[in-house]
Amino acid sequence: MKQMNQGGKRMDALFDPRGIAIVGATEDLSRIGGQPIRALRAAGYAGAIYPVNPKYTTIDGLVCHDSVLNIDGDCDLAIIAVAAKHTPRVMRECGRKGIRFAVMFSSGFRETGDGGDTLEQALLSAAREAGVRIIGPNCQGMISVPSRNYSVFGAIAADVDLEPGGVSMVFQSGGFGFAVMSLCDSMGIRFRHCVSIGNEADISTPELIDYFVDDPGTRVIFVYIEGVSDGRAFMRAAQRARAAGKPLILWKGGKTEAGQKAAASHTANMTGSYDVYRAAFRQTGVLEVDSVDDIADSIKVLARGLLPAGNRVAALAISGGSGIVFADTAVAQGLEVAAFSVQTTARLRQVIPVFGSVGNPADITADIFNDISRFAGALDAVLDDENVDQLAILLASLPGRLALESAKAIVAAQARSNKPVIVAWSARRDRAADAYALLESAGIPVLATPERGGRAAATLHRFARHQQTAPAAQACQGSTRDAGGTPSSVHALSEIDGKRLLQAHGISVTTDHVLDPEAPAIDALDDAVFPVVVKLSSPDIAHKTEMGAVAVGIRTREQLRTTLQTMRARVRSAAPEARIDGVIVSEMIDDGVETLIGVINDSAFGPVVAFGLGGIFTEILKDVTFRVAPFELADAEEMLAELRGQAILDGSRGKPPLDRQALAETLVKVSRLAWSMRGQLRELDINPLFVRPRGKGVAAADSLVVLADGAQAAGQSVGIFQCDPSTVDG
Amino acid sequence: MKQMNQGGKRMDALFDPRGIAIVGATEDLSRIGGQPIRALRAAGYAGAIYPVNPKYTTIDGLVCHDSVLNIDGDCDLAIIAVAAKHTPRVMRECGRKGIRFAVMFSSGFRETGDGGDTLEQALLSAAREAGVRIIGPNCQGMISVPSRNYSVFGAIAADVDLEPGGVSMVFQSGGFGFAVMSLCDSMGIRFRHCVSIGNEADISTPELIDYFVDDPGTRVIFVYIEGVSDGRAFMRAAQRARAAGKPLILWKGGKTEAGQKAAASHTANMTGSYDVYRAAFRQTGVLEVDSVDDIADSIKVLARGLLPAGNRVAALAISGGSGIVFADTAVAQGLEVAAFSVQTTARLRQVIPVFGSVGNPADITADIFNDISRFAGALDAVLDDENVDQLAILLASLPGRLALESAKAIVAAQARSNKPVIVAWSARRDRAADAYALLESAGIPVLATPERGGRAAATLHRFARHQQTAPAAQACQGSTRDAGGTPSSVHALSEIDGKRLLQAHGISVTTDHVLDPEAPAIDALDDAVFPVVVKLSSPDIAHKTEMGAVAVGIRTREQLRTTLQTMRARVRSAAPEARIDGVIVSEMIDDGVETLIGVINDSAFGPVVAFGLGGIFTEILKDVTFRVAPFELADAEEMLAELRGQAILDGSRGKPPLDRQALAETLVKVSRLAWSMRGQLRELDINPLFVRPRGKGVAAADSLVVLADGAQAAGQSVGIFQCDPSTVDG
Repeated sequence: MKQMNQGGKRMDALFDPRGIAIVGATEDLSRIGGQPIRALRAAGYAGAIYPVNPKYTTIDGLVCHDSVLNIDGDCDLAIIAVAAKHTPRVMRECGRKGIRFAVMFSSGFRETGDGGDTLEQALLSAAREAGVRIIGPNCQGMISVPSRNYSVFGAIAADVDLEPGGVSMVFQSGGFGFAVMSLCDSMGIRFRHCVSIGNEADISTPELIDYFVDDPGTRVIFVYIEGVSDGRAFMRAAQRARAAGKPLILWKGGKTEAGQKAAASHTANMTGSYDVYRAAFRQTGVLEVDSVDDIADSIKVLARGLLPAGNRVAALAISGGSGIVFADTAVAQGLEVAAFSVQTTARLRQVIPVFGSVGNPADITADIFNDISRFAGALDAVLDDENVDQLAILLASLPGRLALESAKAIVAAQARSNKPVIVAWSARRDRAADAYALLESAGIPVLATPERGGRAAATLHRFARHQQTAPAAQACQGSTRDAGGTPSSVHALSEIDGKRLLQAHGISVTTDHVLDPEAPAIDALDDAVFPVVVKLSSPDIAHKTEMGAVAVGIRTREQLRTTLQTMRARVRSAAPEARIDGVIVSEMIDDGVETLIGVINDSAFGPVVAFGLGGIFTEILKDVTFRVAPFELADAEEMLAELRGQAILDGSRGKPPLDRQALAETLVKVSRLAWSMRGQLRELDINPLFVRPRGKGVAAADSLVVLADGAQAAGQSVGIFQCDPSTVDG
Repeated sequence: MKQMNQGGKRMDALFDPRGIAIVGATEDLSRIGGQPIRALRAAGYAGAIYPVNPKYTTIDGLVCHDSVLNIDGDCDLAIIAVAAKHTPRVMRECGRKGIRFAVMFSSGFRETGDGGDTLEQALLSAAREAGVRIIGPNCQGMISVPSRNYSVFGAIAADVDLEPGGVSMVFQSGGFGFAVMSLCDSMGIRFRHCVSIGNEADISTPELIDYFVDDPGTRVIFVYIEGVSDGRAFMRAAQRARAAGKPLILWKGGKTEAGQKAAASHTANMTGSYDVYRAAFRQTGVLEVDSVDDIADSIKVLARGLLPAGNRVAALAISGGSGIVFADTAVAQGLEVAAFSVQTTARLRQVIPVFGSVGNPADITADIFNDISRFAGALDAVLDDENVDQLAILLASLPGRLALESAKAIVAAQARSNKPVIVAWSARRDRAADAYALLESAGIPVLATPERGGRAAATLHRFARHQQTAPAAQACQGSTRDAGGTPSSVHALSEIDGKRLLQAHGISVTTDHVLDPEAPAIDALDDAVFPVVVKLSSPDIAHKTEMGAVAVGIRTREQLRTTLQTMRARVRSAAPEARIDGVIVSEMIDDGVETLIGVINDSAFGPVVAFGLGGIFTEILKDVTFRVAPFELADAEEMLAELRGQAILDGSRGKPPLDRQALAETLVKVSRLAWSMRGQLRELDINPLFVRPRGKGVAAADSLVVLADGAQAAGQSVGIFQCDPSTVDG
């Protein structure tokens, strides 16, 4: 098996090939096997085009070969448009010819079910042996705009006049992705490499993101995904984009149950829970969007590379309503409307007419343009203000000369300031062509409306914050595949063993006295221990309360003795086979709030930590937050901040502030436990975890731990579970 | 004082005047006093144009008069662009000339502060005496597209080629409103009457809505407001629109604190709480939007007048991703993705290729167009399905011949069905001009992207639901002004008197025994009464718990006696002046959930009822719902359904379902109380109101009632407060 071409510059020939073969080329250029021929020629592709089909001798005036083997020039890329069953043979021929990449339109593989699955494996084996890397199969192709590489079919194949830019994209739906490309192009966004990734049999979304991160011509990355098979690889690529300062804008299809169901039948990707995807996006600084307008607007503000230092925004509006709408949107999106300094207000008062407003948003009125130096003065005053991190100028639909003069003043002000300036403006193009051209050539983002300006300003701030606070993204290690599939059988631990496991990972548990189940030494208990909770510990009883194996508020030894008798009788009758490995006499915690920590094994991301406040928060409000394990303190703090009920932690309702710090540290420890025991740990629920007043820490009062049977078969007992030192330290 | 022209056809002359005077006309047509002259002529206004300014004899070739008094033809409308101080005189002259309407560009009135306020009053008095109705002042004017009445200045004055349509709008920000108009026009929306309403010194937003409701040419109404002075009048107008089946689309500026602050300095309207506005919108079926795209898209789907019977949507997509994105958006907006019947699935299987999907959203693939009868078959199959209420067809960017054939099939299918069909499609116009034209002429809404399609489909369903379930909208009666301003002084009622008031309005309270505060007849209490809560009732103690004037769980007469002694001693020492009007011995309710009902007096809407579940729901989550009083059972049920924690009412967490019916009825009774006592009732808090298991009703356990002193001065005592029979019955 030849060595695979992977990553880095090795994919350059895919995007800028010296020659392109079209295998399954058709004389009818409107058909799938003909469209790329027409597109490549019309778009001005400069390399050689080699139609391949034994049926023809020429197509569209080009020599048509009966096999790629007979191509007589350099050829780096083959477009494959033949029936699925022929594709393994074609791969072998491509390999022999030295063709290194294939863009595979052919469908009839994994997306159709079982038979297709086998065929896809055969295709992949053939390609690997032949040393050919594949885009697809079952994809709509790709466009590399700078090299005029239109290896594509469908409506986009007619957009041969696309101008190149700095945005590269990969998408799991060709029709939708290319429609987005075309719409964004009409909004002034210019693209570089755009790939419909199809079934991802070989080259995957993360691998392409990786390539775009390393590609000097790519400034912004856009991704549409429905699901990823290796969530860890995706996170690693996203984290690399963040480290490189390249915005990764992403649309997740299949957020709702209905959408997920459709996605499952579309890309055959198990999409997993959107909650977990969203957590992964947050951990790696991915910018989520959910409309085409948002994509275009986000790219506009992010492409410039100028970032705000904080979340305080100023607005200068020539229409009061625009300022109000901008402020409403910006605030709803997490920005703060800056408080102007006394000095700024004084400076604005000198230039803004009395019927305007010097507050923020300022209503500068159209009157300010009667003397353009007044407008320039307003711009400088606001940009000079230390309370302002970015500035939005809201020009409504100002046309003509005034628009041009404003544009000049804005470009000049931006040149003097390192704070980002954006413009919300909707003059008809034909009324202000020169002003648009001036702003665009200066890289000033122009959004169509004030509410879109508000959203875009918030996106810019969000990216800046990710750049400033990027944590180490621990969860980017490994592969979801290593995290283990579903084991054939599992077993639960008793509460005693479960708590030992938690303690071995540094997680605080309640102060427990474990007594012999047959001869509990109740008399040996100190008076100071009471009042207590008493429980029977058993690996066979998952829900102790339902079984009557828990009693709270026991105040005396006598009461304890009686309670225990009743409890044992109850359990003996209800679950005679249950093994009892101890009697737990546990402290009563009365100054704590009940919370829950869980570990789930996600199909796309592996071990994930879930956290919620107890009671109605989790049961009624589903107020639960997730992060892919392992993670750092900053992530744990974000988790807490995300909860709708987070004020509980700050001690509202007359209670003291809780130990948020200890809680966050515990989440980190659980995340490390989950990752170090990946594949073995099938389920972990700490319920409840008491969070006590600040300085008093947390205590796990009970836990449910389910392990894969393999772990036990290997002779490991709970007490000796070792953490992976590389993740447990630091 | 002459009779005022109000409502109905009386405003026709404003929109279609026989002649228009421009008072303060300027020779320089680029200035505010010149722009309407140029616009009226360029737009093709057919009536006479009369420039008025003593400085000129002609302007732009038109005779210029020194006063409106010297105009020699029919003139129904005057545009006023003179300094504020001259406007009262001009009004008198207009009246003498028989000019019935003025559009007042002039500013320097209420929006500038105190002096302006007086001038605005003078203007209004002059206008009323003269019989002239005013749009403005401080407005940007108006456009009536069918009559080419461009009484306007600013960028929009150059859009003289606007084509007429069925959308009328009124907005409290000229710059923003006309920018919206221009942008929507570019998205294919056609307008009728568009009015920048300015300070609303005379003609108000509700009055214009009223006119649009009665105007046969208006099919859809759009309103941008920052605040209204008479919320009741606004609700009445909105309710009339609903009754007439005319969609009222509304954007509220100033939703956030920052936006409200800006709005206060912009329109000088007290905007009040957005929570209350939103409640009023829900009560009257107003469709809220918050982006220009949403306005255009909502108008597109609503203008046709075809409504879905329910919330079940079907989607046919030529791209899997489009279907997924559509489903995600539709579900997030409250639609349900329909389950296709067995029959439909079988019919789809006959026409959709195997690599597509017959689920919903169906992935029909572009292949289906190879035989257009297959596409037509898919359309009919889905439209015939009884589980489907509306259909979205997602064509990505399908161009050319296929687009045209699809359009033909869609138009034909729509003609056969009374279920609304919408299309999400983004082909470049120049690639599919004939298909666009065909769909548009058939009135099929075309949205640019699948997510916009999903939102628009949800808007259409929302409007249909409002039409089907429209309640009587009790709150549309009266005027906020009648609800009384802030009284000079107020007084609180004791718990005893407060509960009597509640009972007089049919609201259940706890079973209480009221004892003499000096000689409580404790021995006379029946054994069955215990356990009890004991409280001291006083008009001077608003917060009994803090004062130690409440004790719960009293089990015996002796305990009651001791508790009462301690309690009285505590109160005597802490509040020696407090008048005690009784000892309340109250039943202990242990099967109820604590909730809160409040009445607030909103500056824009008057009495409003607030409701929340107790504890963390109101304190931590601010999970509170509002409705303008009075209202009906359907509104109360909506209030409950809006709460994030509403599952509590259904008896989750092992508890029985609560008496939702009794709770809803109680909210209605409180709303009637609040309205019947408007002006007198300053504050009402029922805290807690226990909601008990189904069939057991509710019980107000305590109440805080604050009344205006005027109520007392009139000699009314609480026991004799009479409800308004017109609102308490039925």
